[in-house]
Amino acid sequence: MREISSAIKTGAEAYLARQYRTISIIAVVTTVLLAVAIRDASNPWLGVDTAAGFMLGALASNLAGYIAMFVSVRSNVRAARGAMTSLDRALKIAFRGGVVFGLAVVSLSLLGISSLFLVFHGDPRLMVGFGFGASFAALFAQLGGGIYTKAADMSADLVGKVEAGIPEDDPRNPAVIADLVGDNVGDIAGRGADLFESITAENIGAMILGIAPAVYVMFGVNGLIFPLLARSFGLVGTMVGALFVYHRKKENPFNSLVRGLVVTGVISAVGFYVLTMVLLNGDLDYFFASLVGIVAALAVALITNYYTSYRRSPTLGIARAAESGAAPGIVNGLAVGLSSTALFIIVIGVAILLAFWLGNGFASLGGNLDLTDPAFQKGLYGTAIATMGMLSVTPMVLAMDGFGPITDNAGGILEMSGVPARARVVSDELDSVGNTTKALTKGYGVASAALSAFLLFSAFLEVAGLKGVDLARPGVFIGAFIGAMLIFFFSSLAIKAVGSTSAVMIREIRRQFKAIPGIMKGTAKPDYSRCIDISTKAALRNMIYPSLLVVVGPILVGVLLGAEAAGGLLMVGTVVGVLMALFMNNVGAALDNAKKYVEAGHLGGKGSPVHDATVIGDTIGDPLKDTAGPSLHVVVKLLNTITLALAPLFIYALLH
Amino acid sequence: MREISSAIKTGAEAYLARQYRTISIIAVVTTVLLAVAIRDASNPWLGVDTAAGFMLGALASNLAGYIAMFVSVRSNVRAARGAMTSLDRALKIAFRGGVVFGLAVVSLSLLGISSLFLVFHGDPRLMVGFGFGASFAALFAQLGGGIYTKAADMSADLVGKVEAGIPEDDPRNPAVIADLVGDNVGDIAGRGADLFESITAENIGAMILGIAPAVYVMFGVNGLIFPLLARSFGLVGTMVGALFVYHRKKENPFNSLVRGLVVTGVISAVGFYVLTMVLLNGDLDYFFASLVGIVAALAVALITNYYTSYRRSPTLGIARAAESGAAPGIVNGLAVGLSSTALFIIVIGVAILLAFWLGNGFASLGGNLDLTDPAFQKGLYGTAIATMGMLSVTPMVLAMDGFGPITDNAGGILEMSGVPARARVVSDELDSVGNTTKALTKGYGVASAALSAFLLFSAFLEVAGLKGVDLARPGVFIGAFIGAMLIFFFSSLAIKAVGSTSAVMIREIRRQFKAIPGIMKGTAKPDYSRCIDISTKAALRNMIYPSLLVVVGPILVGVLLGAEAAGGLLMVGTVVGVLMALFMNNVGAALDNAKKYVEAGHLGGKGSPVHDATVIGDTIGDPLKDTAGPSLHVVVKLLNTITLALAPLFIYALLH
Repeated sequence: MREISSAIKTGAEAYLARQYRTISIIAVVTTVLLAVAIRDASNPWLGVDTAAGFMLGALASNLAGYIAMFVSVRSNVRAARGAMTSLDRALKIAFRGGVVFGLAVVSLSLLGISSLFLVFHGDPRLMVGFGFGASFAALFAQLGGGIYTKAADMSADLVGKVEAGIPEDDPRNPAVIADLVGDNVGDIAGRGADLFESITAENIGAMILGIAPAVYVMFGVNGLIFPLLARSFGLVGTMVGALFVYHRKKENPFNSLVRGLVVTGVISAVGFYVLTMVLLNGDLDYFFASLVGIVAALAVALITNYYTSYRRSPTLGIARAAESGAAPGIVNGLAVGLSSTALFIIVIGVAILLAFWLGNGFASLGGNLDLTDPAFQKGLYGTAIATMGMLSVTPMVLAMDGFGPITDNAGGILEMSGVPARARVVSDELDSVGNTTKALTKGYGVASAALSAFLLFSAFLEVAGLKGVDLARPGVFIGAFIGAMLIFFFSSLAIKAVGSTSAVMIREIRRQFKAIPGIMKGTAKPDYSRCIDISTKAALRNMIYPSLLVVVGPILVGVLLGAEAAGGLLMVGTVVGVLMALFMNNVGAALDNAKKYVEAGHLGGKGSPVHDATVIGDTIGDPLKDTAGPSLHVVVKLLNTITLALAPLFIYALLH
Repeated sequence: MREISSAIKTGAEAYLARQYRTISIIAVVTTVLLAVAIRDASNPWLGVDTAAGFMLGALASNLAGYIAMFVSVRSNVRAARGAMTSLDRALKIAFRGGVVFGLAVVSLSLLGISSLFLVFHGDPRLMVGFGFGASFAALFAQLGGGIYTKAADMSADLVGKVEAGIPEDDPRNPAVIADLVGDNVGDIAGRGADLFESITAENIGAMILGIAPAVYVMFGVNGLIFPLLARSFGLVGTMVGALFVYHRKKENPFNSLVRGLVVTGVISAVGFYVLTMVLLNGDLDYFFASLVGIVAALAVALITNYYTSYRRSPTLGIARAAESGAAPGIVNGLAVGLSSTALFIIVIGVAILLAFWLGNGFASLGGNLDLTDPAFQKGLYGTAIATMGMLSVTPMVLAMDGFGPITDNAGGILEMSGVPARARVVSDELDSVGNTTKALTKGYGVASAALSAFLLFSAFLEVAGLKGVDLARPGVFIGAFIGAMLIFFFSSLAIKAVGSTSAVMIREIRRQFKAIPGIMKGTAKPDYSRCIDISTKAALRNMIYPSLLVVVGPILVGVLLGAEAAGGLLMVGTVVGVLMALFMNNVGAALDNAKKYVEAGHLGGKGSPVHDATVIGDTIGDPLKDTAGPSLHVVVKLLNTITLALAPLFIYALLH
């Protein structure tokens, strides 16, 4: 077990080291460009300040991803050992690994923002560079990790499961170590960087809204400190909530995790109540706004669960459609993914409106107000507090998210070490829970991206000196079209990178099966390192072009067509990015779980034609749900931070 | 051959009769609601006028679809007979069938608009109801027809080709007649209604822009008559162009069609030159704007061809990826569909900017102008003329589009009648050309929808009394989210309808194969009518709910959140609808042609594992490219006409 775990650790560390080296080179170039390009007559140091913040943000994001990976590659073997003792032990070890990285990632963000707050004397607009750096690095990390993990996963499944008929995580599969490494660099390091960026951008956005005149008049600097303290309460809540995660007899382990989440949510709510009384003049409407956010987070989790759990009709429908063949199952899966967006959007819409309304004391829904109106500014601060509410449970959600890949790895280590089947029953049960929590975290990631984005819209308008973004103007309409198109094109490149990498790896696995005849008999070991090498190189190469696309696209539109066109790109790109991410995450999870439903012995079980049909569906869903979808969360946030940081460049359009 | 043709005719006529009956009932209810609901202090008759226009528009749209079907079910058997003589004969018969319906559909629109122009004394705003009625009826027709045709097609392929191993259009397949009927009610009647709506909405939009003060001052009523006369030149151009469609020795039949299109384009361009000299004070900038539109139409056709032809790398890549299995092929196909949007959006963007710039004599790109500015009004009139340019070749494009299903039907009739293989070689060659022209027409349909939509945005702002649509306001942002979500949700329902209908039909086909053992030996006839009945009922039932969704959604948002939120829904819904339609059309066409590439004998040819893999891909693409995609063209236009017609209702929002 130690040998396998150490192979995973070595692979993951080697990959991340190379990945961060590549990102650093690109980030240094970008830092220099930022320092030179951004100018503002009233503030000659704006470019240098932004560039410094950018560098720090990128470093902090990489550090967050590294810490996450560091913890997970050490927890997996311990969780595997725990599974040999009891479910409770394995559950606690895997979950607490997640807690460590959840707390570390959130604390790091808090530390970064607080330091900048002190250095820049409380002007959050100068922190925008930090957010830009964080989203910039996160995009490369999430995309690179996503390509790595899914190329390995798809190839291992297609050649191993479908062609050679060996089980998942079988040591005879040459791609199995690459697959396990992928869980750590994609799901763990990638998601860590993703949510690091979410909470960072949200804090910055909330503080910008806190200095809006109408809000500053009421609360002064308290309105800026509020987001930082609210975040701290979330950390405390997670520490307490984590104590409630243990296994009761016959309890579904998923419920143990939910118990921890609920405790964290309640403590966060108490924290918001105290903070509202102390810092916000006891205006309970703001407390209610935070509850709106917490409830919305819960609703999003329930909706995601409904559309992707195989105990519910959407995913069951996919499995049943697969009885007629792979194509009807996949068509049904696409339909489920597309329709899963509807309830989600309604929840987000109601949350924004309600929080806005609470924020200005039920004065207005903002229908005919503009940014300079006090009721508008107060309303926006209400939506900021709802976003804080949603994000207050982030460390706990990250812990639940980390739980998934750790148990996945633990199962792999057990399978490969040939330990008794009893331990694997434990790890399989935890693994299926991990699939659910991973899907929930992604839903949560999209929801928080949508809400934080809305906060940053107003910040962008203010920095760019715009009164609004009017889509009826030709340039803005084209900006909007380009925003939507960038999302489609980026998704295409991400998916294609996985496809082309796995094509290479499939050939390599087939070659090894042929060249080393002892593999299938178990007398010879496959050459794992070749597959690791293929994933590493392809991920590093393929993460660059798509990421630069979503960086350069908005800059070109802003410089050529002006700030308002960049605003159109930003806003429509956000809307489309959120919907596409939801679609891709959910279609993938639903197709995956339809397969799991069949594997649990229904509709013919493993090896039946229905199983083959659902395996094809799962393989199609893989790059959607673990590469393109999660990367789109980061793209949405990057669009926001990039337009915000570069707004001074867009004031004068070359074509006007 | 006559017997089969008459079975197709009976099926198509029976279906359309029932479909139009259903649409009529819904339309009458809507007419009454419109007459009662729409009020305007300054014009007490607005509701009644709109309602009357709505009724006429719906009737005309149904009539256009009926005429198209009437012609095609009579041309198919003649084309089949022609294929037994020569390629030239078959080509001419099939193409001229298309010409008849292309000319009929366009003339009908021109007749309707001209009559309303006279009745309403030249105020185009009162014609909005006509456009609303046309898009309303077109949506039901396109969606119902799309469900009908693809449910039959998918089931016939899955059970016939994959399970029973019989060829396409084999008379032993119980769903074969339903499949052939589907071509006529989906591709022909549906597309006829779709493009009827495009040209109608474009004419109305152009005339509304023609009465903008800055334009009216320059051209007076000439600016309103211009769109009608430009349309007439397109009709003349098509009549002449049609004469150039004949088969030269060894010429690819596709080139014959392109020759006709080019001649039509040139005659239209000459028409624009003459009209500009006579009606628009000889301002050649407007003539150049029309050329921008014609060139954009050509560019869109080339781009679509690049992404979907199996002579080009994107589709070839799909076929090669399918060598590793169905999943890699489909993943690659999704990536191709997503990336195919990029060049298209750039062409549309450049066309809009260039036409706008030409329109106001290079004064401004509209970056900081608003609707009341003369340079803005003139610029918009420039984009209107570019749209006219693009749409001037519509009758010819419709002829090329109709050519596809007619030859498809002809091939089916030949196959089923067991005529000598030589005739089928002719029909197969024409059929593959028909696949290309169908894909091109869809690209053209999306492009024209995007351009016409932009024209109607300004019209909406004016009617709703808005200065702009600002996405940074919470209500508008939510409207935008709902607009995008409606597109996703509508697509889901359309796809699911095909899936669930084909599940029923697959069971029926399997049942017949079992219950009537003589079918496979050819000694007993399958019961075709049962399959026709399943498609008919399912199409009628399933077209209602999704269509009402996209009607009720914008009304609810407008009434609750106000006109600006409805504007956000409209504009973002348009952007997302255009991109999703492109994605779905192109992914389907590319997957279809990857299969055709294998069937042409590459990568193992028919019956190989690669062929099986591409057949799965094709089946997944079917509901995307022929049901959801084309219906989305109509949804985009419906969003425009519905918000325009109901804008008076949205002035006072219930929640504000």
